[in-house]
Amino acid sequence: MLEHKCHGIKKAWHRASPHYGSSRHSTFDFMLGAKADGETILKGAEDTWEDHSYLATYMNRNGSFANMRIYPLGLVLLDLQSYDSDIQSKEEADSLLNKIEEKMKEPSQDSAGQVKHLPPIVRGGAIDRYWPTADGRLVEYDIDEVVYDEDSPYQNIKILHSKQFGNILILSGDVNLAESDLEYIRAIMGSRKEDYTGKDVLILGGEDGGILCEIVKLKSKMVIMVEIDQMVIDGCKKYMRRTCGDVLDNLKGDCYQVLIEDCIPVLKRFAKEGREFDYVINDLTAVPISTSPEEDSTWEFLRLILDLSMKVLKQDGKYFTQGNCVNLTEALSLYEEQLGRLYCPMEFSKEIVCVPSYLELWVFYTVWKKAKP
Amino acid sequence: MLEHKCHGIKKAWHRASPHYGSSRHSTFDFMLGAKADGETILKGAEDTWEDHSYLATYMNRNGSFANMRIYPLGLVLLDLQSYDSDIQSKEEADSLLNKIEEKMKEPSQDSAGQVKHLPPIVRGGAIDRYWPTADGRLVEYDIDEVVYDEDSPYQNIKILHSKQFGNILILSGDVNLAESDLEYIRAIMGSRKEDYTGKDVLILGGEDGGILCEIVKLKSKMVIMVEIDQMVIDGCKKYMRRTCGDVLDNLKGDCYQVLIEDCIPVLKRFAKEGREFDYVINDLTAVPISTSPEEDSTWEFLRLILDLSMKVLKQDGKYFTQGNCVNLTEALSLYEEQLGRLYCPMEFSKEIVCVPSYLELWVFYTVWKKAKP
Repeated sequence: MLEHKCHGIKKAWHRASPHYGSSRHSTFDFMLGAKADGETILKGAEDTWEDHSYLATYMNRNGSFANMRIYPLGLVLLDLQSYDSDIQSKEEADSLLNKIEEKMKEPSQDSAGQVKHLPPIVRGGAIDRYWPTADGRLVEYDIDEVVYDEDSPYQNIKILHSKQFGNILILSGDVNLAESDLEYIRAIMGSRKEDYTGKDVLILGGEDGGILCEIVKLKSKMVIMVEIDQMVIDGCKKYMRRTCGDVLDNLKGDCYQVLIEDCIPVLKRFAKEGREFDYVINDLTAVPISTSPEEDSTWEFLRLILDLSMKVLKQDGKYFTQGNCVNLTEALSLYEEQLGRLYCPMEFSKEIVCVPSYLELWVFYTVWKKAKP
Repeated sequence: MLEHKCHGIKKAWHRASPHYGSSRHSTFDFMLGAKADGETILKGAEDTWEDHSYLATYMNRNGSFANMRIYPLGLVLLDLQSYDSDIQSKEEADSLLNKIEEKMKEPSQDSAGQVKHLPPIVRGGAIDRYWPTADGRLVEYDIDEVVYDEDSPYQNIKILHSKQFGNILILSGDVNLAESDLEYIRAIMGSRKEDYTGKDVLILGGEDGGILCEIVKLKSKMVIMVEIDQMVIDGCKKYMRRTCGDVLDNLKGDCYQVLIEDCIPVLKRFAKEGREFDYVINDLTAVPISTSPEEDSTWEFLRLILDLSMKVLKQDGKYFTQGNCVNLTEALSLYEEQLGRLYCPMEFSKEIVCVPSYLELWVFYTVWKKAKP
């Protein structure tokens, strides 16, 4: 029951209290000498608490604050949050943290244990540097500029500049490709083991133009790229030129054509016309992370694409696609199961590749039709 | 001035107060209907605060707590901290955060802005998954096991298991090499452009045995590896076998020898004996991050190593070394300056390589003696 007297409310409180937990709030105020410091005071108070566990919130005049949470068994977690990220604030925070580290290391603190100081997290700024990996790990990128940020009818399109990876295309929050990622393009083209000369190629997706740009160099006969989102192409042709060169400047070249269309009706049309390709490269979407294929329409979409792709693939043709992060073993197994459920019997191989900007190893698949007996 | 009456202390307080900031603490308690919820109450209160900024701390019975800090201009930061990381706690936290996200997205909240939910950070556990990059970015590894953790007279040695990278050697907090990192070994051996057949090779450091293992395969004449820390070798030969094979099982083989010694006196001895090598591979330490070469003895050490290495390098020999993260441009420039200050004129080339477990691009140097005129 609260002990403060607050005018006439007290009576009503008494009536209501049987239904609620009540709070006993004791205050006890001290005015200590000018030399008293907070650390010592807290340390003194700490000993009287039963499990030596507490939460202290420190406030600064400028609105920044820190929490110190002391758990049993010696775990002390300190969080410092300040609003401005100007250099002065940074220096103040660093100096404060260094002081605390020194205090913690003082022999009197019995800190035989370890100290860990993570790099600060910048939140709510104009530049977002945190783009978690497909397997859910927290990673910070060296982003220093938002180059492009637009919503198309299909997705949010961001192109962010990384100091080491060049411009990075991020579609609806997923890191898609950076200008550093030639390894991705090589992997999804068959890791330099294929001869594209004089071949017919179909690219599904491929919005950044990287695959198209590389294949066009290899004297293929005809490359068709089917990409639904004109706005991604517009962004990439302007800001991902280390990836696409000038290949997206025109939607048609001597040996290639870009169709701005949904790939499903295009695949159906090609299948109906009996059109066939030596290579089909599916650069549409990673294998869904969901491990419930029955519940997830993405898996239906994926299988439809696979089935239609096989219909337009020559008997001795090859189908290349990305899988997902190598750690997502369940999702990858499910994808491999889907490959066994297509209208025609298939075989596949897979390869693990390090794509620089992904910060995780990625699986790529090569799929082909089983030789007829 | 505090308004609570606390026995006889009040008078002393008055005496002391001219020198201190005093605090006016007004309390006002409400007992609302059973259906009143915290969100609504806070929202009501918020409007009366001048800059609409506040910090709320929510507590749970089990000791977990959350801070909600509302800054002006619509930035709301929520932090949730709980002690146990068992599955139930995780599910509770997730469900709580999902509920809050829904609330924030309600039209009444006018949240036209963005929502960002970072993966949770696990602190103080037996397994530390956070090993920041050389350029100071926060990155989380998929560590699931501490394989080895010992302090040698020289450094802390950790070998941690990563699901995707295999075992990772971490020396005094720096990610050194993972079993996935053949690219590192290839790069520091000259990126497969060198012919090691019949050559004399000196490896400085190289504790994980990766370089030694690869060179031994290439039918070199004799490889000397000089590593100071027997304990790292012991750890690596047991837990980094995908890197070192069986090459560290014995300190001497048909065409190699491992010296457990400080490399400086060894280099001096070799120089005195007039012993020369076709390749010197410095795998000792990355280029120091410090940009004050005059103040930092690491730079002195580095230049001493360089000078001595050149003394044992054949006139047409090559010296390979790692540099640092490609983003540390100042440190790299300083290193290149050092190369110009050696006793003999040198030339160099550099290459940027993606080492899978580093999560950042890395610079490698090839250094050679300028042809005599």
